[in-house]
Amino acid sequence: MLQRTASLSIPKTEFKSRTQKLLEHIRAERLSGVVLFDHYYILYYTGFAFIPTERPIAFVMNASGETALFVPRLEREHAQANACVDRVDDYLEYPCEPHPMQLLKKRLNEMGIVGAYGADTDGYPWVLGYRGPTLTELLGSAPRRVTAFIEDQMMIKSPCEIALIKESVKWANLAHQLLQRYTRVGATETEVSQRASAEATLAMLGAIGPIYRAQSPFAHGAHAGYRGQIGRNAAIPHALAANIVFQPGDVLVTGANAPVWGYNSELERTMILGRPSDEQREYFEHMLALQETALRAMRPGVRCSDVDRAVRRYYEEHHLMSYWKHHVGHAIGLRYHEGPFLDIGDQTELKPGMVFTVEPGLYLPHLGGFRHSDTVLITEDGIEILTYYPRDLESLTLPV
Amino acid sequence: MLQRTASLSIPKTEFKSRTQKLLEHIRAERLSGVVLFDHYYILYYTGFAFIPTERPIAFVMNASGETALFVPRLEREHAQANACVDRVDDYLEYPCEPHPMQLLKKRLNEMGIVGAYGADTDGYPWVLGYRGPTLTELLGSAPRRVTAFIEDQMMIKSPCEIALIKESVKWANLAHQLLQRYTRVGATETEVSQRASAEATLAMLGAIGPIYRAQSPFAHGAHAGYRGQIGRNAAIPHALAANIVFQPGDVLVTGANAPVWGYNSELERTMILGRPSDEQREYFEHMLALQETALRAMRPGVRCSDVDRAVRRYYEEHHLMSYWKHHVGHAIGLRYHEGPFLDIGDQTELKPGMVFTVEPGLYLPHLGGFRHSDTVLITEDGIEILTYYPRDLESLTLPV
Repeated sequence: MLQRTASLSIPKTEFKSRTQKLLEHIRAERLSGVVLFDHYYILYYTGFAFIPTERPIAFVMNASGETALFVPRLEREHAQANACVDRVDDYLEYPCEPHPMQLLKKRLNEMGIVGAYGADTDGYPWVLGYRGPTLTELLGSAPRRVTAFIEDQMMIKSPCEIALIKESVKWANLAHQLLQRYTRVGATETEVSQRASAEATLAMLGAIGPIYRAQSPFAHGAHAGYRGQIGRNAAIPHALAANIVFQPGDVLVTGANAPVWGYNSELERTMILGRPSDEQREYFEHMLALQETALRAMRPGVRCSDVDRAVRRYYEEHHLMSYWKHHVGHAIGLRYHEGPFLDIGDQTELKPGMVFTVEPGLYLPHLGGFRHSDTVLITEDGIEILTYYPRDLESLTLPV
Repeated sequence: MLQRTASLSIPKTEFKSRTQKLLEHIRAERLSGVVLFDHYYILYYTGFAFIPTERPIAFVMNASGETALFVPRLEREHAQANACVDRVDDYLEYPCEPHPMQLLKKRLNEMGIVGAYGADTDGYPWVLGYRGPTLTELLGSAPRRVTAFIEDQMMIKSPCEIALIKESVKWANLAHQLLQRYTRVGATETEVSQRASAEATLAMLGAIGPIYRAQSPFAHGAHAGYRGQIGRNAAIPHALAANIVFQPGDVLVTGANAPVWGYNSELERTMILGRPSDEQREYFEHMLALQETALRAMRPGVRCSDVDRAVRRYYEEHHLMSYWKHHVGHAIGLRYHEGPFLDIGDQTELKPGMVFTVEPGLYLPHLGGFRHSDTVLITEDGIEILTYYPRDLESLTLPV
């Protein structure tokens, strides 16, 4: 009788089937192998989450299906314990002598990666002070970019991935509920966000701690906050946090997420502090209708562009285009933003297993921003809205 | 009589003198202009902090010194309010139609950027689902990489930048003091880290809130924590947070920081929970001696490699190389890691205005990790250790 330990994590068999698909692509393209530097791609194929720095880390696979992870000494044990690969090779340090890329070249030669090969970028990107040769300089020929294939693969989420996104939704929902509960006139966004996020994180760890890892370099638990989108400042959709004090009449735009084994969800709500004015009510209702329009347009077989076009039509028919700032939404998964995009320029067909944010917004300089964001799964015959936080104005009106 | 409002931020004149230096480089290299995509470089030259996404943002300067920021519609007002540039141009959306890079090409043509030109990367990197042409494909010729020049420029911190790093040190010190105070057997790293970080952030905002911005896409206040480096797990230096419960006898490795107008500092301490064993005491003292060795080796005119070599000699003479995992340290500023590196492979000369972390470590699988990190400024005649948290074992031994 098999004894299994409960876990939320992606099973090893799934990492194997992911690399298997990449291997089939390598063979179909007649490549000798592939080199990946992007840390999300490495997490996707190996399960190894790490803090990206100036020390290059690479995932390598040759056309025989042998896999290796190339890491600095610093990450050896960490990688050995977590990465689903045949072997972990380490170099001493960056910059050091010889340059790590010279050792990578040696390993690539040993694995038979010569001539035609694939990569996500031509060498490790020059981030955080890193400097080094391109793969072209190193190997004498330019890599074939395999990014499009990988992006297409990552678009379709497996049942395990969807389960993790659903788990993320729950704890983001808790953080958001607490955020709404603690938001009041005179408080600051920072104290409210900290209290809600801390309590939600502790509850989450109490409930699922032993089977949970964030696997995110940026966040370690549930989080809900405003990112400065308060009052008229809410008209700037990608503001950074300030420490604004809540005032009666403020239009608020929230955001909540909780990375679960690397997977993200997105929950955003527009809330009004005090009795909404007629104008606030009007734009809130338009925003709801815009989101409804998008949700009604989404189903398998439809193109991303069709969804954005349907929503743009609503903006135009209601003379709202001067308050438009962005497309309907983006895919979400291991990354807080990923492709495809619900955008008139994206002709990708919606397919079962894709997960999107749906978040058309209205931004009025004198009034603030209006945007809900929900996380939505494309199913075999339609959609499943994974976020279940109330959307109506009454539920999102805060007492003053 | 001039009336000035108190501010901690970098003054506009400094952004102008930064771009002026870049301009001189462009002219010396006979380039028609430069295109930068890296969000830290954009922050450095324009003061505009934003959340990097799949929507390309570019800073452009031509050989006449005209500057422009190229942003999505979403960021227009945000950029206009914050970026120190001659003009902000916006494109509708990514992916959209036409592709934003086609509009960037038009703007580059209008600004006279043709033939020889510089860039940090050959096109916007394919991150978070972005796909698009390289600059080479777009303009018909490959860019000259200007990254090395920019990195060299960013290495030398101005008095304003040093003041911001010193401000960061203070609030990281507070967060760390609270972290030490709240750490006790039976508590979890998450609850202790959250409480210390939240209290320090609120104190910081109470003290400097009106003249403060984090300007960081990743952190919005002071933070102190363990990132899972607890007990034997502390032997993995770049672990990600778990939710470990503190046990008597644990060796702990901390980390504290507070981004201030984008600038970082680094404070890390090794602490022991309960009376240190003889073995713990031995490696703690070696770690202190390693750090002392580095600090004694640092002064203007010395090479980065010399510092690492002096410290490696200590490891070797005391038979500690099997516990070595990384070089002595890295520069720090707008980025939590940046060059140059205190590494045998880095021949850069230490110069006044450089700021480094000094953090040689010892990692013993059966015992844990031992590492202090201090933030150190190179002065005209030596060094100034900017972090002032106690380093001795007695101060860092916690009661059980």
